[in-house]
Order: sequence, then C-alpha cells, then structure tokens
Amino acid sequence: MSTRTMDVPALVEQARAGRPRAVARLISLVEGASPQLREVMAALAPLSGNAYVVGLTGSPGVGKSTTTSALVTAYRKLGKRVGVLAVDPSSPFSGGALLGDRVRMQEHSGDSGVYIRSMATRGHLGGLAWAAPQAIRVLDGAAGCDVILVETVGVGQSEVEIAAQADTSVVLLAPGMGDGIQAAKAGILEIGDVYVVNKADRDGAESTARELNHMLGLGESREPGDWRPPIVKTVASKGEGIDEMAEALEKHRAWMEERGVLSARRRKRAAGEVESIALTALRERIGDLHGDQRLDALAGRIVAGELDPYAAADELVEGLTNGGTADRA
Amino acid sequence: MSTRTMDVPALVEQARAGRPRAVARLISLVEGASPQLREVMAALAPLSGNAYVVGLTGSPGVGKSTTTSALVTAYRKLGKRVGVLAVDPSSPFSGGALLGDRVRMQEHSGDSGVYIRSMATRGHLGGLAWAAPQAIRVLDGAAGCDVILVETVGVGQSEVEIAAQADTSVVLLAPGMGDGIQAAKAGILEIGDVYVVNKADRDGAESTARELNHMLGLGESREPGDWRPPIVKTVASKGEGIDEMAEALEKHRAWMEERGVLSARRRKRAAGEVESIALTALRERIGDLHGDQRLDALAGRIVAGELDPYAAADELVEGLTNGGTADRA
Repeated sequence: MSTRTMDVPALVEQARAGRPRAVARLISLVEGASPQLREVMAALAPLSGNAYVVGLTGSPGVGKSTTTSALVTAYRKLGKRVGVLAVDPSSPFSGGALLGDRVRMQEHSGDSGVYIRSMATRGHLGGLAWAAPQAIRVLDGAAGCDVILVETVGVGQSEVEIAAQADTSVVLLAPGMGDGIQAAKAGILEIGDVYVVNKADRDGAESTARELNHMLGLGESREPGDWRPPIVKTVASKGEGIDEMAEALEKHRAWMEERGVLSARRRKRAAGEVESIALTALRERIGDLHGDQRLDALAGRIVAGELDPYAAADELVEGLTNGGTADRA
Repeated sequence: MSTRTMDVPALVEQARAGRPRAVARLISLVEGASPQLREVMAALAPLSGNAYVVGLTGSPGVGKSTTTSALVTAYRKLGKRVGVLAVDPSSPFSGGALLGDRVRMQEHSGDSGVYIRSMATRGHLGGLAWAAPQAIRVLDGAAGCDVILVETVGVGQSEVEIAAQADTSVVLLAPGMGDGIQAAKAGILEIGDVYVVNKADRDGAESTARELNHMLGLGESREPGDWRPPIVKTVASKGEGIDEMAEALEKHRAWMEERGVLSARRRKRAAGEVESIALTALRERIGDLHGDQRLDALAGRIVAGELDPYAAADELVEGLTNGGTADRA
C-alpha cells in the first residue's frame, strides 16, 4: 500500500473532510521518503500554519502520556481539534497502533476530533528532526488540527529536537525524581516555556517545584515583557491542574503572538527544516557520483600522487555546483 | 602547541629524516581540522602511496594488540619500517601515549624504525573514516613506513570502516569465542582477506578454524585466480605462526598487485575520501548560511504558506551552487 501511487489531492480533500484513514495515509507518505513526499508537502503548504504545536518532554515515569491524554480531554472540551504525535526514537515501528504504555490514549480512540499517531525514528536519516515536521504539517494542514501535542518517548537529545519543532515546550517533572532533575540539567531543563510538576499529590511536590524555581532562576527579576516560565502542578491521572496547564499554554501563545515571537520561532524552524532538506539533497548528489567518471579520475590522480584529497574535493564540489542543476528532475 | 602555525615543509623534511617528534606533530596537525591540514596533505600527496596498509580487526580478547606487536617484530626482522595506528573509537583522547592494554607495544618503543600512534575518534565528525586516512598518509609519506598496521580497539561498525582504509584486512579470532563469531556474522567476518585464529594452543582452535572455513565457504571452488582467504593459526604471545601470517599478507599483496586489485582498492578508497571531504565542505557552506538573508527569506515564505520546505530547499541549493564558489578561500 505504501508504495502505491496515491491521488494526493483526493487524499488531502478526504483528510480535510475528516476522514482519519486519509490522514494516516498522508502521514505514511511523508514519513518515509516516498516519491510523493514532495507532492504532499507542496499541497499542504498553503493549508498549514494554523495549528498550535506543543512539545511535551520529560523523563520516563513523570506521566507524560497521562498528562498528554488529560490535555487532549481539556482541549476537546474547548471544542478544539487535537492531534497527538507520539515519537519513539528507540523504535523502528511507526503507524497507527498505540504504543504499549499509551493505554490512557485509548479513551480518545472513538473521538473523531482527535488524531493519534505514533512515529518511530530509529534508523531514520536525520531522525526526529527530519520526520516530525512533515507529520506535523499533515496534522495541521490536512487534518485541520487546532492543537498538535508532540510527545517523545525517551530522553536526551531527542527531547531537545522535539522542543525545536514546537511553538511551546512543556517540560514535565515529578516529585522524588531528583535524578531526573540532575539528568535534565544537561540542557533539557532550559528549553521549557511551561513547567509541569505532575503527580503533585505525592510527597515532595513542593520541594521539586522549589528546586526547579531555584535552578532556573525563575524568581529573579526579568525585563518587563519577558516571558517568565510558570510552574504548574498537576495530578494528571485525576485531571487536576490540567485546565491550569492549558491556560498557561494559552498565555504563552498569546505572549508569543503579541511579541512576534511565534512567527520568529516558526521562521527559525522552517529555516532549519530547509537546511536539513538541502543538505540531504546535496548528499544525494554526491551519492549519485558513485561510479562517476569525474570522481574516479580524481581518485586515480590521488593514487598517483598528483593530487591530495582536499584539492580533489575542491574540484569535485566545483563540478557538482556548476553542473549540478541540469541533471536533476 | 597544536594551534601554533608550523613550518610544514620543515616538519616533513624532519619526519623524512627519521625524527619521530616531527611525525607526531604532523599527525596532530592532520588529526584535528587544523588550518594547516590542507597544507600538510598537499605536501604529502607526491610522497605517499608506498606503504602497504594492513587493517587488523577482531573482538576484544582475541589478542589483537599482541598479534600486532608480534607482526611488528616480524617486519622489523625483514628490515621494514613499520607504523602502527591504534584507533579507539570509544575514547576522546589521542596522542603518543600508549593505551593501557597496549603494554606489549612497549617493546618497540626504543626502535626508531617503528612509529606507534594511538588515535581517538569519539566525537569526531565522520569518526574513523575521516581521521585515519590522514594519519596513514603521514606515516606513509612523511615517516616513510613500508608497512602500516591499523588496529581498532572495540568492535562493530568501526571495524568495517578500518577495513575500508586498508589494502589487506586481517580478521582475528580466538578459540572458544563462539559468541564472537556470532557477533562477527553481522558483516564483519566477510571483510577478511586473511583470517587468523590466535591462541591456537588452546582447546577448540581446530574447531574454530573449521567453523570459520565452513561459514565463509572457504572450501568451495573458486574461479581460477580468485583469492582464497587463508586461515593462519598463531600463538602471538610466543611469536608462533607470525612468520606464516606475514607470508600470507605478502601473498595477498602480491596477488593484488598482479591482478590490479591493489590500485583498484586504493582508487576506491581515495574516491570515498574525496566524497567525504566534499560533503563536509558542502555542509559547511550550508552552515555559513545561518543568518543568511536568503535562508531567512525562504523561511518567511514557508511560514506564510507560499512555499513548501522542499521547494525552498531547491531554491537554496541553486543559490548555493551558483553563488557558492566565489565566497570560498
């Protein structure tokens, strides 16, 4: 099915009419590097940019999935169409199937206003940074989602990457996870626009919030108009604090719009995306040279001691960049 | 010291006169991406291509370091100048210092006909594939080594990469390491031109050789003139079988020269090197675009829905490749 040529305009129309299978097919098309990827992306360009993209990151065990699910409920009550993109950098399996620990999400499975997609990035060239923006565009432009929640399974670099895809980044913590905070110190904590201390009915919630407040210098004075990341306490399993979390997100969004930050972030994100696609294209051009006469001739001159590999690379790049445009589709 | 501008021609001359410190400095210059890297490589181009490069790979515990050291002794007896490049992909520390488990090598430390260099590749862009060929060129062109033994610490992908740098690849095994063979099945075993069963005085040496013979189909008939990888049994710690190993290497070298395989392999290697340098150069050009007007303008059009990121990447690449040559040194 995935290699069959699809009628992209028809799929987009069906997706916009609320057909979840069309959404799923479009995501499959953009997730792999299918020949139709470009066609889908071109079709979605004028339709995209309406969704508010929220990234949720945090160590395993903080209740990310539960919180995401509760947030979906909150947005649904407001009548918003919601997309959830659950990204698992450790898995090679993508698709509509819910991940094992994502049972909470099943409560939304009968709701036509919610699209849930799990996405695997293991082994993908460029990983998350490459795959997520395209799926986001489908949920935005084709599925017409008002809000897209992007959640990673796992920790580390992938979380920072997810944050780079989002309009607003939420960092989740839980009480008694001092180790988590230690780990998070390595660049992850700083990315939050909104902090959530989940499982706030447990011992230590106050001290976790205090520690966080201290580490981030949230109590320090800021320039007037600067964003001061709030710390929201939630008990996601009981739905407590979730409305406050949604309010904090809305405040951040309003602040970003007011200050021009939202469009600046989106421009930066788009620039990064273009760079990454351009680099891939250049890499492919070089790949096309395998067996190319020029490269082989240069290699022969290196072996003969007439040329060093750097000078040869210069010649190759000149050849690529001068003759490079004609031989592409 | 490493950032000081060196007199490259003088260093090369000193290295060729047998001064080990000059060799060490040249390797330091090419190992990092120093501004003088290109100068060194250009100076070495006409001097390189004489050394016979042997890659040694194998799981930890097979006695790689001991075998390498014994092979150095054998080559020294033949009056050959020998370079040893011990590559550790797990370490960020390079230099002249011997690695902890490399004690055996110390017997050669007073020998002016032996250059030993440990090289770390952790965190290096492009890793082994990038760093090793340049050091090989120094040992070849500047140090005047007749034979260069490239040995990896660790397993996996790096071994395959090392093999790609060598004229002849030696895969080492030891008896009772069935697990090693299992692991090696994943693409590592196939790369051998010569197989060595070390610790052959232990139980199971025969069955290891037999298993290897069977797995590789070494007993099957081949086209006349094809290379049939030999299996050599050694007890490197006692120097047993090492002369036979050196003979097997010499036979492989002679076979390669006879059949034109040696120069074909070197051309292929040079082509790969050029590709990798060219790709890095293109990546840097894209990197230079951060903050570039063109990229920012494209990003703005994406956010406005006027353009999709793939079409934008096309425009960026055209811009790069047309205007790209003027802005380089």
